[in-house]
Amino acid sequence: MVFKKITLIGTSDESFDAAADEAIDRAEDTLENVYWAEVEEFGVELQGDAEREYQAEVEVAFELEG
Amino acid sequence: MVFKKITLIGTSDESFDAAADEAIDRAEDTLENVYWAEVEEFGVELQGDAEREYQAEVEVAFELEG
Amino acid sequence: MVFKKITLIGTSDESFDAAADEAIDRAEDTLENVYWAEVEEFGVELQGDAEREYQAEVEVAFELEG
Amino acid sequence: MVFKKITLIGTSDESFDAAADEAIDRAEDTLENVYWAEVEEFGVELQGDAEREYQAEVEVAFELEG
Amino acid sequence: MVFKKITLIGTSDESFDAAADEAIDRAEDTLENVYWAEVEEFGVELQGDAEREYQAEVEVAFELEG
Amino acid sequence: MVFKKITLIGTSDESFDAAADEAIDRAEDTLENVYWAEVEEFGVELQGDAEREYQAEVEVAFELEG
Amino acid sequence: MVFKKITLIGTSDESFDAAADEAIDRAEDTLENVYWAEVEEFGVELQGDAEREYQAEVEVAFELEG
Amino acid sequence: MVFKKITLIGTSDESFDAAADEAIDRAEDTLENVYWAEVEEFGVELQGDAEREYQAEVEVAFELEG
Amino acid sequence: MVFKKITLIGTSDESFDAAADEAIDRAEDTLENVYWAEVEEFGVELQGDAEREYQAEVEVAFELEG
Amino acid sequence: MVFKKITLIGTSDESFDAAADEAIDRAEDTLENVYWAEVEEFGVELQGDAEREYQAEVEVAFELEG
Amino acid sequence: MVFKKITLIGTSDESFDAAADEAIDRAEDTLENVYWAEVEEFGVELQGDAEREYQAEVEVAFELEG
Amino acid sequence: MVFKKITLIGTSDESFDAAADEAIDRAEDTLENVYWAEVEEFGVELQGDAEREYQAEVEVAFELEG
Repeated sequence: MVFKKITLIGTSDESFDAAADEAIDRAEDTLENVYWAEVEEFGVELQGDAEREYQAEVEVAFELEG
Repeated sequence: MVFKKITLIGTSDESFDAAADEAIDRAEDTLENVYWAEVEEFGVELQGDAEREYQAEVEVAFELEG
Repeated sequence: MVFKKITLIGTSDESFDAAADEAIDRAEDTLENVYWAEVEEFGVELQGDAEREYQAEVEVAFELEG
Repeated sequence: MVFKKITLIGTSDESFDAAADEAIDRAEDTLENVYWAEVEEFGVELQGDAEREYQAEVEVAFELEG
Repeated sequence: MVFKKITLIGTSDESFDAAADEAIDRAEDTLENVYWAEVEEFGVELQGDAEREYQAEVEVAFELEG
Repeated sequence: MVFKKITLIGTSDESFDAAADEAIDRAEDTLENVYWAEVEEFGVELQGDAEREYQAEVEVAFELEG
Repeated sequence: MVFKKITLIGTSDESFDAAADEAIDRAEDTLENVYWAEVEEFGVELQGDAEREYQAEVEVAFELEG
Repeated sequence: MVFKKITLIGTSDESFDAAADEAIDRAEDTLENVYWAEVEEFGVELQGDAEREYQAEVEVAFELEG
Repeated sequence: MVFKKITLIGTSDESFDAAADEAIDRAEDTLENVYWAEVEEFGVELQGDAEREYQAEVEVAFELEG
Repeated sequence: MVFKKITLIGTSDESFDAAADEAIDRAEDTLENVYWAEVEEFGVELQGDAEREYQAEVEVAFELEG
Repeated sequence: MVFKKITLIGTSDESFDAAADEAIDRAEDTLENVYWAEVEEFGVELQGDAEREYQAEVEVAFELEG
Repeated sequence: MVFKKITLIGTSDESFDAAADEAIDRAEDTLENVYWAEVEEFGVELQGDAEREYQAEVEVAFELEG
């Protein structure tokens, strides 16, 4: 059994949790057998008057077929 | 005065905060003089269709008696 | 263009997100051109029966004038 | 010349070496010009009475065509 | 569900794998619900003509009852 | 909005800067919406009398469509 | 032979050395076969006019019986 | 003698060296007794067709008066 | 409540403790509400026949007014 | 008593253990009073059809005479 | 085959690249079979009006004879 | 100008400072142009009833001739 890890950064204007979820959602939408995720880093983009953008860098692990 | 640190991993199907709280709750239920906690890592377990399980690895420090 | 980074620790009795926001609010109240923030560490202060105090250590980057 | 690195986790019920080899085998089966691998982490899964599963997280580097 | 992590160092005069196994055996002999282990460090003790002693520092995670 | 990060290693017989540029060039040639890059490591390959090969390991972040 | 590591924080109003010694004293008072200690971190508590409290976070290793 | 360290990020559309120099120039323009600098990180901003912006995060140390 | 952290390097020709104290003294002389300090690094300057200069890099945290 | 540490990289076409042993053998062949070794990193060289070359980077500590 | 790693710091009043090259030149002048180098750290010495001195700390690996 | 760094571990039955000094003394006894030292780690050996042995792992930098 071999797993592969990819690094995604989710964003949300609500919270760190929501940003992490967004990255995991994207992985689960496009990959089979997603097993776990590890948070690498949280950050916030703050350009000017725009809303705060919460960011979560997440490593997502999924099992490779065959 | 001497403190001891132990490493607990709380879990929750709601959020990282709730997972960290669960670990701290457990420490406060079983230990006296719990003073502070440091988050080491956040992760998410994703097996199949089960709900996402948010995990928080936390170092909890408490004062030793005597 | 030169940016400067400062390290602030926000606190909140509600959540890690709120603690991070508090630090960023303080930076935006006192500084111009705040561009982004990076979370360094989350912790919780637990002295006795007082409410839990969530803490977020955050590096805030802002552009220096001139 | 440009290389790309991917992160694979091999598993084996025999040893850490075998787990690392399994990840490298998978890379060599599906990629050309695999040049080297770096071990990031070793772990062991221990659920219940099942056999121990040795895991090796490995970064594999291969040369990109063109 | 809350897990606890403890740090054990297994030793063996044969191999790193055997040293890691020894630490995990000890955990499984004395604890219920041992779920996984993470290798922190490998080392070798070399005093004089004695046999080489392979050492594996391992964090072992187990689920706390109740 | 979700970003993905990949790890590339550029090489050059001139300088570290040129090696980093080569990796970024490759990313921009093959990917849309490349936003930023972070240098992970610089190294130099020195086999025999061949020219020095400067290497730059770079994480490149790009926005995922949809 | 299996060793276990625990994390203690000693305190002293005199020096970092004294703080580390206090943690090791506590371990030797309550445990058999304490073999070595590794300093993880030094800090100083400075609340108000109280004396400075030097702190030493120390990992202490001892051999497990049987 | 006490030194203080501040963190600056210099930018340049030419090279990493030039970006580091820009941060050090800024420090030397506004501070007395700047003694040394340590590079923390190199990065490149790549938004759209704009020129590449090389960035250098640098810790600058200067001696405090009195 | 928001804290700020600054990085100071104290020096002494006697000991690491004295060097750390010197940095903390400087902070307490110029800042209100200094709460704690964390040692980042110890070093020794050894130029020629001059006395050894012990250095302590310390992060000092203080509460911001308002 | 003063120890010195040197960094060696052993290689083997059999296993990580054998690669670490090769580095330690070399140290013991050429140095007196070799006391312990710490594994820094494991890697595998994979050029073309040649056999896999397991590599172990090891810090070896030995006591200096006099 | 066993490699040894040594740590050298090259200096240059021109650039980081030149500083790294200076360290590698010195290794190649005095050692056989120098295979590769890894940059550990870049820094700049800034004493007074003297020219900036760029420094590159580099680990150089070479194959040991026999 | 090229510097070389070596890693020494000094020991003392009195204090961490004394252990660091012992390593630096040894370097200065056997090397010319020793410029600075960086503390990597402090530890304490505690075998049985023997006195505590404070240990300081120190990187010592010296300028290479020519």
